[in-house]
Amino acid sequence: MSNIRFYNAGILTMKPGDKIIKDGVLCVEGERILYIGEPENEPGGIKYDREIDVKGDLLMPGFKNAHTHSGMTFLRSMADDMPLDKWLNDCIFPREAKLTGEDIYWSTKLAVMEYLTGGVTACFDMYLTPYDIARATEECGFRCVQVGSMNNFSQSLELQEEWLDKLNHGNPLTTYMLGYHAEYTCSKELLTGLSDLSHKYSAPVWGHNSETESEVKGCIERYGLTPTGFADSLGLFDFGGGGYHCVYLSDNDREIFKKRGLYAVTNPGSNTKLASGIAPIADYLKEGISLAIGTDGPASNNCLDMFREMFLVTGLSKLQKRDASSMDADEVLYMATVGGAKAMGLKESDVLSPGKYADLIRIDMSKPEMQPVNNITKNLVYSGSKADVRLTMIAGKILYEDGNFNIGEDPSLIIKKVNEIGNKG
Amino acid sequence: MSNIRFYNAGILTMKPGDKIIKDGVLCVEGERILYIGEPENEPGGIKYDREIDVKGDLLMPGFKNAHTHSGMTFLRSMADDMPLDKWLNDCIFPREAKLTGEDIYWSTKLAVMEYLTGGVTACFDMYLTPYDIARATEECGFRCVQVGSMNNFSQSLELQEEWLDKLNHGNPLTTYMLGYHAEYTCSKELLTGLSDLSHKYSAPVWGHNSETESEVKGCIERYGLTPTGFADSLGLFDFGGGGYHCVYLSDNDREIFKKRGLYAVTNPGSNTKLASGIAPIADYLKEGISLAIGTDGPASNNCLDMFREMFLVTGLSKLQKRDASSMDADEVLYMATVGGAKAMGLKESDVLSPGKYADLIRIDMSKPEMQPVNNITKNLVYSGSKADVRLTMIAGKILYEDGNFNIGEDPSLIIKKVNEIGNKG
Repeated sequence: MSNIRFYNAGILTMKPGDKIIKDGVLCVEGERILYIGEPENEPGGIKYDREIDVKGDLLMPGFKNAHTHSGMTFLRSMADDMPLDKWLNDCIFPREAKLTGEDIYWSTKLAVMEYLTGGVTACFDMYLTPYDIARATEECGFRCVQVGSMNNFSQSLELQEEWLDKLNHGNPLTTYMLGYHAEYTCSKELLTGLSDLSHKYSAPVWGHNSETESEVKGCIERYGLTPTGFADSLGLFDFGGGGYHCVYLSDNDREIFKKRGLYAVTNPGSNTKLASGIAPIADYLKEGISLAIGTDGPASNNCLDMFREMFLVTGLSKLQKRDASSMDADEVLYMATVGGAKAMGLKESDVLSPGKYADLIRIDMSKPEMQPVNNITKNLVYSGSKADVRLTMIAGKILYEDGNFNIGEDPSLIIKKVNEIGNKG
Repeated sequence: MSNIRFYNAGILTMKPGDKIIKDGVLCVEGERILYIGEPENEPGGIKYDREIDVKGDLLMPGFKNAHTHSGMTFLRSMADDMPLDKWLNDCIFPREAKLTGEDIYWSTKLAVMEYLTGGVTACFDMYLTPYDIARATEECGFRCVQVGSMNNFSQSLELQEEWLDKLNHGNPLTTYMLGYHAEYTCSKELLTGLSDLSHKYSAPVWGHNSETESEVKGCIERYGLTPTGFADSLGLFDFGGGGYHCVYLSDNDREIFKKRGLYAVTNPGSNTKLASGIAPIADYLKEGISLAIGTDGPASNNCLDMFREMFLVTGLSKLQKRDASSMDADEVLYMATVGGAKAMGLKESDVLSPGKYADLIRIDMSKPEMQPVNNITKNLVYSGSKADVRLTMIAGKILYEDGNFNIGEDPSLIIKKVNEIGNKG
């Protein structure tokens, strides 16, 4: 635990109404932010372990990757440019069948490296073996909200109840939420059981939702209801939660999202690469649906880069609406940071403010694509890239700085291990 | 002029049929590649000024940005999220009217910095004052193919003839091609004059072409022909050339492109951000039209990042066709490198091969998003980013390495100057 002081900083707190602070100071005491503002009003008497002159660079909250499958990095570029069903059945499922908890542990660590280089300070992770994931992320010092991916073939109600208890009462870097993989991989009985669990603990529930047209069609054929309508009819959303993808929400689905305060987490990179379609995010925003952004897993995207996702959210909306003004960059930046934190229940990691966790990043303002400074937030969304991230701090600890990792593990060992998993065949 | 030897390199030559060389050596003698291959067969007797252990990183040809307006960096993020006509008339045109040659010189240098950080080794640049652009790019050591942007309001046939002579017989880093801004900004007389000039010099001709539906509609109303059909009817394409954007090419236009060997340069970032539409690149490819990729200018895109463009070319194609297999990553990588070089007439900068110019980049294979190595070229297109570019060399000179520029100018002065231009109001 150390105290760190940043000075000569531009500071984008992301608190609604706040303007960007110039020539500011941000002080971190242990895990939390102590002070943000002019150097004149800084609290005295703090002994700093390190003082960092950021030379006019920007400090801002880290990105929240609100939907991913971190443990799938081993599959990156193993199966691209093929139809979705062939991709799943011939490439993904057979390889996942051979996967061990140790494989997931190493693959997750590679994902954490990628998150840190891209300024992501927390992810909303849905994968197979939660204790291995927690071990990987906690060892790195990374913040991870896990969610159940229960279906007819893996995980169970009993396991989810255990994880809900264990993973919400251990290392504060880890939390857990109830979840199901998707309607089409779960029986009605299983989802009813999940609803019971949700009611027992007043807990929100998450799942893949309306990612493709055929998924929606299949659900209507089975139950006469859309995936959202069906889940809601079982009481799954009585305590909130939300859906991943949400490309095809009906008018009635959208009413349910608003009524239940559900989050739609959009994944435009994955929806693009798998040709699933464009989620009408501009409409959702106008209708008052809460929004967050995720990369989805590296098997489909193939990267874990929130800069790419931000450009796609606004760009695809403009294409879909045939209107260059349909989706403002500032809205997208909010979704990628504060929106994600709210969806993930990270109330202390949403904005930069005294008392909050010091989950923040330093953006290199000397990079050509961040200049000139006509509008910083538009630069971030339209020309920013992960190349602009100089430093990533989580809970007051610098985990990445100028190309170097501080994650308690040799990065080259992580890379070696994940290549071995990929080569298992 | 110096000799440089890279060793322990993966080498992607981009020559059709070549496999990636592992543990290879690439020797540069002066401006050109001397040797590529196994260390065993290396030529002796060369004195190297520097030997670089690339530690398994990848050497490959630099990207060719086949359509841009480099001098517009001063406008970045000055006018976003607004309809196209308002964007042009209220924001872009009034500011361009105040622009001096010196402004263009500095703005172009900022663009060169951005190209170098993103692994771009040449651009196809269309802007206002060619001598200022040439001065900027040549001073940096950057390769630039300029093209006329003649229209009813600026440039002229006489000037283009002068530039065609002067800029093709000076510094070999600079070449020049005939061009017109677009059909809708040029009179028939002007375009007829350009056709005469093209015939006088057997020179290809380039212009913005079918970027928006309204552009095509307007041309049909004026002349009863599409922009491609009209230009061809004037003999503008008798010696080749091509079009920028090409979002809306009719069947007959495509026949003309094939018959005349024209290049369609796609600009998906700009077409997305300005809501112009999706070019049917998968169809063009299938029909045998030659293809290249450009970023367009930083006022519309807003960045000059060929990694983003590559992802968009394949991703938007998949969305448009509703088929994840519609556009292969390898095809896109070819367009972004060799395709661009061919379009731009850079016959000695297209692939890595002895005798060719040493226009190459080093990709950092230790970056998490480049791992595991299931497929290097798919990693480049689907998860690669400018953050992976460690070194950019043009004509044997290292202009960018590990965040540092070697462009004969203090980067912070360039940034200061371009901010001043933006702030002129």
